[in-house]
This record gives sequence, C-alpha cells and structure tokens, in this order.
Amino acid sequence: MPSGKLRIALVGGTGNQGPGLALRWALAGHEVFIGSRRAEKAARVASELSERLRAVGVDYEFKHGQNQDVVPEADVVVFTIPFKGVRPTCELLAPKIGAGCVVISPVVPMKKAEFGLTIELLPEGSAAELIASLIPHARVVGAFHTVSAGLLNAIPEPVKGDVVVCGDDREAKEVVMGLVRDIPDLRPLDGGPLAYSRVLEALTPLLITLGKRIGQPDLGVKFI
Amino acid sequence: MPSGKLRIALVGGTGNQGPGLALRWALAGHEVFIGSRRAEKAARVASELSERLRAVGVDYEFKHGQNQDVVPEADVVVFTIPFKGVRPTCELLAPKIGAGCVVISPVVPMKKAEFGLTIELLPEGSAAELIASLIPHARVVGAFHTVSAGLLNAIPEPVKGDVVVCGDDREAKEVVMGLVRDIPDLRPLDGGPLAYSRVLEALTPLLITLGKRIGQPDLGVKFI
Repeated sequence: MPSGKLRIALVGGTGNQGPGLALRWALAGHEVFIGSRRAEKAARVASELSERLRAVGVDYEFKHGQNQDVVPEADVVVFTIPFKGVRPTCELLAPKIGAGCVVISPVVPMKKAEFGLTIELLPEGSAAELIASLIPHARVVGAFHTVSAGLLNAIPEPVKGDVVVCGDDREAKEVVMGLVRDIPDLRPLDGGPLAYSRVLEALTPLLITLGKRIGQPDLGVKFI
Repeated sequence: MPSGKLRIALVGGTGNQGPGLALRWALAGHEVFIGSRRAEKAARVASELSERLRAVGVDYEFKHGQNQDVVPEADVVVFTIPFKGVRPTCELLAPKIGAGCVVISPVVPMKKAEFGLTIELLPEGSAAELIASLIPHARVVGAFHTVSAGLLNAIPEPVKGDVVVCGDDREAKEVVMGLVRDIPDLRPLDGGPLAYSRVLEALTPLLITLGKRIGQPDLGVKFI
C-alpha cells in the first residue's frame, strides 16, 4: 500500500455521497476514479466535478469508467451505493478487486419505521461484514456513515464532525483514517473491529430522522 | 403539572446514574427523593449526597425512602435502574405512580458482543416502550441515554453534550427538556415519538464501547 497519493475508485460514485468524497479527495491530491454502472454517466459526472474544481481555481481531471473498469488498479475502493446494490455489485466486482485492496463501506441497510428510519438487521450483522464475506480477499473498513453528502459537496467549506472507522486490518484502517484527515475538519476515531459496524451503521438512520425533526438535514455527530 | 420546582423521585437512585442526576436537580432547586429497594441504603446515600452539596456551599436535604414510598407524590419519576429490574420494578410501582406522572426512562437493554456492548432487541421495541406498556397511566419519556454518570457526578463542573428526548406526550416531553436544560451545559433535542427510543437506546452501548477503545470512559455526544 503506497502512502501519500492514492488511487481511489468510487463505485457508484455518481450517486449521493460519491461526488462529495471525490471532490474532497481530489483536493487532497489523490487520483480519483468515478465509477458507475453506465460509462456515459460516469463520464458526465467526472466532467461536471472537474468543472466544479476549476470553479474554485483547481485544475484537475477525474478519471471515470464503468465500476468494473475503475476498480482493478485502485488502492482504495469505496462502495458509495445503496444497500440494495451491495450483493450484485460485490458479485460483479469481486474478481476485479485486487488482493489486499482497501474497500471502504459507508453503506447502511435502512428501512422505514413509523417514527422515521431505522436499521435493517442482516444475518451477516452489518453491510460492511456482508461486503467482507463477498470479497474475502479485500480488506474491508467501515467509515463515513455519519457524514452528509450535502456537507461533503460544499467545497471548499470544512466539514465538521467525527468519522468512526472500524475494520479488522490495522494498516487498512490507518489508510482510511488518513483519508478522513484529508477532509478538513473531519476527525477519525478508531472504532475497533469490523463487527463494530453493527452498531455504527445504526447511527445513520438515527441522524437522518433526528435531522429532519429538528430541521438540520445535514446533521453530523461529534463525540466529546 | 406544576412548572418551576418539581418533585422528582429517582427509582434506584442509589445506583449508577441516580446520584449525579439527584445532585444536578437539587442544585437546580427541585425537591429530589432518593429511592432504593432498601430504605437504609436510600437514607445513607441521601445523607452522603446532602453532605456533598454542603461541601460546595449548598444547604440541601435529600428526601429518601423505598422506591414504592417515594413515587406516589412525585411529579417526575426517573427509572435509574438496570434493564433487568424494569419488569419487577414496574409491577411494584405501577399502582403507586399517579395518573399522568412523567416517567423518565434512561434505561438501555444491553448485552455483550464480541466487539463490546450492543443493544438487546426487545419484543416491545425498547425499554421505554416496555415501561409505557407496564405503566399505561404514566407519560413515559426516553432521555439521558448519552450522559455518563461520571460527568453528572462531577459537580459543579458543567456537563457537555446533547440529550435526545422522545415521547408521545408533548407536555411531558417539554417538562423533561426543561430538566435537561437545568443541568449546565446539556442541550435537549426533541427526538419525536417514544418509538424513536428504539434507535436512541442503541447510542449507549455504542458510546460505552467507543469510549473504552479511545480511552474516554465518559464519552458523550453532540449533534452538529
């Protein structure tokens, strides 16, 4: 795993959290690939995001391609996809993802409840553990569950909040904690093993529901 | 429900979170009753807590008694008990708790997991909803899940953090939000209906596990 500049592939990078992470990591000097199921969509979003960086005075060209084409050379793959896409995406990408590749899961299995959103319980325990079971040669790390797409998108404003990072491989977790620090002013916290994602993923529906109720749609969290 | 000075009965008030809440609400001018299963223990802790207030220059005498003797006249009853005590305590106290009494549940059903603590799933959905089902004439409010006993105890230091309050009775929720504001510098947030305690109670094992891991045993939370 190289230190410094990383090759980061955002699977489903045209969706909700993908563009904001892409912008932030481009600004931090990484080589960012926008992946999508459709090559044209990836190309369009890559072009729009490059334009947004030019608007803040940064000359940068995002790479892009279909998900299966952007992951093979990546140091870090990020699953910025909804939970329902996890299983087919893993089946498609597992043969393309390199051994030891760091895979970040911000995925949260949510469902509607009478009071708002809640976590959907999985036999595998969590989305991150499901991904780890489907891509066993990758080093899966859970992170970025508590950071809103809206705040990530609002470059060059700093993003307030904490990101709890969990995983079973210490080096992979360190890489991801570095990627959190690359986004001002986010703070990474070591949440321990990957199984901690079972409680960690539950923070997302809690934040979305509470944020709607109190009128703060981009609600984040700080541990004090 | 009177405004201003309230009669607050802490059921199991000699335990973990009870003494700190008792000290804080005494300092805010409320009439606080320390309840316990054993009258002598309640008397001893009430005396120790009165002594602690004298040490900071405040003359105050805590009332005390067995749980079933302190709840009948209370405006607010707080269940500062472990989850395993909920059912027998509710059965004992339901006939003694007045109609419309505000009952605060900071109770969290937790169990050990390989990675730390996690929430125990209940058929009733949450500890707060279980209490509401067992004392249907009370107005149950979930609150104080994210405030450590250690910080509450450390008078006169302010307590940093947020307390999400949820319940189905607006007036009862307002009373509890006032009791949060009575503790500097806690901030109450309206978490909506009582069923939101299903996700809210999960914050406690998340905070305890993370706090241990990062070496902050009194970890709290702030929504930003």
